[in-house]
Amino acid sequence: MVQELLKTTERHELDYIFRPRSIAVIGASHKRGKIGREIIRNLLEYGFNGQVFPINPNVSQVNSIKCYAKVTDVPDPIDLAIIIIPRDQVWEAIDDCHKKNIKGLLILTAGFKEVGGKGIDYEKKLKDMLEVYGMRMVGPNCMGIINTEDDIRLHATFAGDKPLPGNIGFISQSGALGAAILSLARSINLGFSMFASIGNKTNVSSNDLLEYLENDERTKAILLYLEDFGNPRNFTQIARRLSQKKPIVAVKAGRTLAGARAASSHTGSMTDLDIASDALFEQCGVLRAASIDELFDLAQAFTSQPAAKGDRVCIMSNAGGPAIMATDALINLGLRMAQLSPKVTEYLKSFLPAEASIKNPIDMIAGAAEKEFALVLKAILEDENVDAVIAINVPPIMQNPIAIASAIAEVAKQYDKPVLGCFMGVEDIIRELQRKEVTSIPLYQFPESPARALAGMVKYHKLITKDKGKIIYYEANKDTAEKIINETIEKKEQLLPPAKAEQLLTSYGIPFAPSFLVHTLEDCIFKAREIGYPVVLKAISATLTHKTDWGGVIVDIRNDAELIDAYQLMNKKIASMKDYQFEGILVQKLIKGGKEIVIGMSQDKNFGPLLMVGLGGIYVETIKDVAFRIHPITEVDAIEMIQSLKGYPLLKGVRGEAPSNVAFLAEVLQRFSQMINDFNFIKEVDINPFILTSEKETSRAIDARIIV
Amino acid sequence: MVQELLKTTERHELDYIFRPRSIAVIGASHKRGKIGREIIRNLLEYGFNGQVFPINPNVSQVNSIKCYAKVTDVPDPIDLAIIIIPRDQVWEAIDDCHKKNIKGLLILTAGFKEVGGKGIDYEKKLKDMLEVYGMRMVGPNCMGIINTEDDIRLHATFAGDKPLPGNIGFISQSGALGAAILSLARSINLGFSMFASIGNKTNVSSNDLLEYLENDERTKAILLYLEDFGNPRNFTQIARRLSQKKPIVAVKAGRTLAGARAASSHTGSMTDLDIASDALFEQCGVLRAASIDELFDLAQAFTSQPAAKGDRVCIMSNAGGPAIMATDALINLGLRMAQLSPKVTEYLKSFLPAEASIKNPIDMIAGAAEKEFALVLKAILEDENVDAVIAINVPPIMQNPIAIASAIAEVAKQYDKPVLGCFMGVEDIIRELQRKEVTSIPLYQFPESPARALAGMVKYHKLITKDKGKIIYYEANKDTAEKIINETIEKKEQLLPPAKAEQLLTSYGIPFAPSFLVHTLEDCIFKAREIGYPVVLKAISATLTHKTDWGGVIVDIRNDAELIDAYQLMNKKIASMKDYQFEGILVQKLIKGGKEIVIGMSQDKNFGPLLMVGLGGIYVETIKDVAFRIHPITEVDAIEMIQSLKGYPLLKGVRGEAPSNVAFLAEVLQRFSQMINDFNFIKEVDINPFILTSEKETSRAIDARIIV
Repeated sequence: MVQELLKTTERHELDYIFRPRSIAVIGASHKRGKIGREIIRNLLEYGFNGQVFPINPNVSQVNSIKCYAKVTDVPDPIDLAIIIIPRDQVWEAIDDCHKKNIKGLLILTAGFKEVGGKGIDYEKKLKDMLEVYGMRMVGPNCMGIINTEDDIRLHATFAGDKPLPGNIGFISQSGALGAAILSLARSINLGFSMFASIGNKTNVSSNDLLEYLENDERTKAILLYLEDFGNPRNFTQIARRLSQKKPIVAVKAGRTLAGARAASSHTGSMTDLDIASDALFEQCGVLRAASIDELFDLAQAFTSQPAAKGDRVCIMSNAGGPAIMATDALINLGLRMAQLSPKVTEYLKSFLPAEASIKNPIDMIAGAAEKEFALVLKAILEDENVDAVIAINVPPIMQNPIAIASAIAEVAKQYDKPVLGCFMGVEDIIRELQRKEVTSIPLYQFPESPARALAGMVKYHKLITKDKGKIIYYEANKDTAEKIINETIEKKEQLLPPAKAEQLLTSYGIPFAPSFLVHTLEDCIFKAREIGYPVVLKAISATLTHKTDWGGVIVDIRNDAELIDAYQLMNKKIASMKDYQFEGILVQKLIKGGKEIVIGMSQDKNFGPLLMVGLGGIYVETIKDVAFRIHPITEVDAIEMIQSLKGYPLLKGVRGEAPSNVAFLAEVLQRFSQMINDFNFIKEVDINPFILTSEKETSRAIDARIIV
Repeated sequence: MVQELLKTTERHELDYIFRPRSIAVIGASHKRGKIGREIIRNLLEYGFNGQVFPINPNVSQVNSIKCYAKVTDVPDPIDLAIIIIPRDQVWEAIDDCHKKNIKGLLILTAGFKEVGGKGIDYEKKLKDMLEVYGMRMVGPNCMGIINTEDDIRLHATFAGDKPLPGNIGFISQSGALGAAILSLARSINLGFSMFASIGNKTNVSSNDLLEYLENDERTKAILLYLEDFGNPRNFTQIARRLSQKKPIVAVKAGRTLAGARAASSHTGSMTDLDIASDALFEQCGVLRAASIDELFDLAQAFTSQPAAKGDRVCIMSNAGGPAIMATDALINLGLRMAQLSPKVTEYLKSFLPAEASIKNPIDMIAGAAEKEFALVLKAILEDENVDAVIAINVPPIMQNPIAIASAIAEVAKQYDKPVLGCFMGVEDIIRELQRKEVTSIPLYQFPESPARALAGMVKYHKLITKDKGKIIYYEANKDTAEKIINETIEKKEQLLPPAKAEQLLTSYGIPFAPSFLVHTLEDCIFKAREIGYPVVLKAISATLTHKTDWGGVIVDIRNDAELIDAYQLMNKKIASMKDYQFEGILVQKLIKGGKEIVIGMSQDKNFGPLLMVGLGGIYVETIKDVAFRIHPITEVDAIEMIQSLKGYPLLKGVRGEAPSNVAFLAEVLQRFSQMINDFNFIKEVDINPFILTSEKETSRAIDARIIV
């Protein structure tokens, strides 16, 4: 019926690939072990609901199906061509497909950009060719695609496993890993709606597929294996929208290799690609799994269980040890142990043996049978203090784990709360249960797995229900800022002089400690008196940065006498640094008290401007207590950035200190984001430190390095 | 033969339990599903190499073996009695065993201290009874013991699985978890030398068993599942010695629950039990696994592979994605990617296809067959820049993974370097390979597992080969210290007054900033001039601590004028704190520059004195950058404590600062440890801050809270 419908309704351009009515396999082979033959075998055995046309000039039939020499010889219309011939023959085949008016391609052939050298040219040629012909193509260098839809049954890969139908959409950037994942999923009864190995993503990107899966009703959750984001800005936009509708769980490989991308300033050197990835995932509502293992834990929970609307978990078990381990895992993951209501504990006491522990984690002891599992589960699911349940069973001798699993599943399905199981030491039985679909709840092997899955579910629920905030526009003196930046660019300078940096920031309402550049002692004293003691002296040089390293900063100068000494000392220091040019000495108001904050921005080639905030001074470099967001940020983003710092409690005030004005810091971050947004000529900013006090009026930037 | 030998040689007291010649099963049953019957069945089916005597007054035979009414009716001598009767009948049975001169007991019966209430009394009774009778007993409330030794074949549990012989000794404090682990181990072909579920540890403790396994030649590695340490000081002593001979890997449950044990001072509140556990494991050379899963990953590697003598790992793979994931995992775990020697890369280039990547991680691409796996592995194992190898195989269509596994194992066994495998998507085949012992290298399912196992192996090798250091005795004025402590105790005071605290620390060579307690402004000015400006004023009260919270500290007073203002301000403050008693105002030398360090000690009920060092000030409370050790410490411990701080780079000096005198801090820690060692009346110490500068002479404690 779907096939019929497809003929009459307008088709999405990717429907020609994922929902084809007819397929040509260019490079069909009649030999065992050849990919062309394996694909045809999979198409037939999986019951493709359409026509398959093998194409191979040297063979008359493949798998008893008539074989054509060229795709143009096929008398019927064709939606999808699967290309498996050597690279140098691909061009002619694509030409033929175009002549035959084929709109969808799946190219498994390798030898393009992934081999480097000439391959990069071939990749470019392929890309251009497809654009000119207006064709859509998955691949090249991929292992194929799957659509388990009843009326389609497309298994166009050479993987040996037959995927189960289900509601997971899977996009893999690695063919080999994709095949392994299909096999692992099969062994735990995890079903897919669609699967795509996307190879080099020359034409159809992971972003295209995300949008395609967004509108696929059968897909309830999306799993991604990524090695790069393609176009991260597109990814952000699509994933932000899509994650509101369906959970997206991603494994992103390459988290450490990217560390080499060291940038010039301190701020920049910390924004390696992986931090950017984390920021991007966080902002888009995408859950990041650390391993394939964890990806599977989450997938099983998301596709079988209702949403986790809160983080209060109750653990029930027939054994103490695994219950303790699950508790440890839960707490470490930031979840809470539910406090059972007195009514429920009283009730549990009424039928559990005296040796049982009726507090959470509930230990029903080894004798617990189906009846106890069912009664306890029912009681805790009824408790409004419980948001989710982990049911642990370590089957003792002569227990029937299948009966226990069924009893748990039977109760669980009557409630709108997630129930995850952990059955230890009976792996073979678990697999069997899953294969036979005896249980509708996920059964894990180790107590850490359900804890991890629940943490993901709780995080997802928070992400989609939280207030996202909005981007606020503050009043700013854009004209002044524009003038400063243009002047600097016209002079072909990169680093803004201190006075200009100060002007730029203040024009966007980011306060700066009063300062003057002076060249004589007299002027210095005069200016110091004007701004008022105590003051700070700083040697200013465009060529010599990190002035504290060589004594180019003298702080806490309290009167004229101390200033004279300091000024002379500073001049001696400057004289000793013969290799550098100095523009003068900056005399600046000393801001007393407050916390040192670092605010920064660096342009990432892929992600665009990355904003950073951190706890300041030398700590920022050693402890690296910083938070990143991809630009632009909302007021909620700003507050979350600050709250995510390890040292955030310091800002709230400890030991009787007045709390720092966090609301103002959030405003400064948003103003900063707005400035970055208005001027894409700004390449890098490092406000270090920004002194945050309890008062908006006394909080000020002290030093800023701005590169345009 | 062993049985014969045992008759002639002197037997260890635990041999009667783990290497018995004859066993009485008290509570033998002829009914299916009853524990007594299952144990006899296991004993028989596993081929126990001795005699089994069922004891049950109501039955004439069990499993065709003659049954006696009482153990005293058995005509033959008996080594071990297994007791499975209800708790209230246990006493008479033990009496009978004593009459029969049985030396070993295994009590599975539950209902002792684990049920609380009266159970605690029964536990005490049992303990005393066994001591009086001089019997050794494993249990109660346990699931049994196993010894796979050929000449013993003791399977005295009611677990359904038949454990394989091997070289892992396993001690489990949870019976249920023990059974689950036996089953999991069986499924991946992991064999045991001995296994013991130790239950309530009323008589035979985990420490007793560790010592027993220490001398068991078949046991090459020891796995522990612990919920508590029993006697942690014993554990420390035994584990320190034993870990030098055999790796010990432990899972310790209850890492978060213990957090509730909040102590009175800030220092104390951070030393919750789990931090103490980590410190104890670290100091004893015990590897801590975060989960059962990780325990297994490590066990497979330790029991099959040679030691990892370095941390330079080479990854070889036939697929890119999993190789990247393994790389990520390795780097995150602190291992290094080996830099292959040019000779080796040249050689690899000579036979691998052009598309292959010959840099580490080596990607041989999907076509790699047995030959390529073997040649590449041989080449990298020959490379002296490589300490260990992870071989990843994601079998493409028509590859024979069994042949690949055999080829890898064949090469690996010719070298003295660990080789760990990861075969993805072929779980069933892996299990089959392991069952058939086709491969002698561990094969994992996910790339993170071999990385984790290697990290454990590298850590273990470092632990056993590193210089442990020794405990140094510094010259100290013990008499003065003793006098101070005795005076305080005699006065029935707990908190040492500041002057006494200063004296106590200086008597052990821990320098203290000069200070005087003053009561008049005149005296204050006089003393300030004596120690020299700048100075600090502090309000001293035994009842009101955390003086910075309410303004009881004024710093950086530079001259008489400032001092007069400060003194008067302080007196006003004191007058306003009516509810507290003050002993006066302390005038103290201001130590300029330097880093704030916190040094602390708290007495742990189980572990004894726990020493702490951390980066100071308010950071210590929020970022919790602290390190712990169990007392006493060697010079290596002291340095390691300091180096393990996240903020350690700050101490080495950043941004042109002079490095802090870390060697002196290490000396202070050791002097501190020595002081704690000399006076076990000292209950708690909190030196906060200790100012560490680049010079020994200017580094000083500023404030110390000492409770006796």
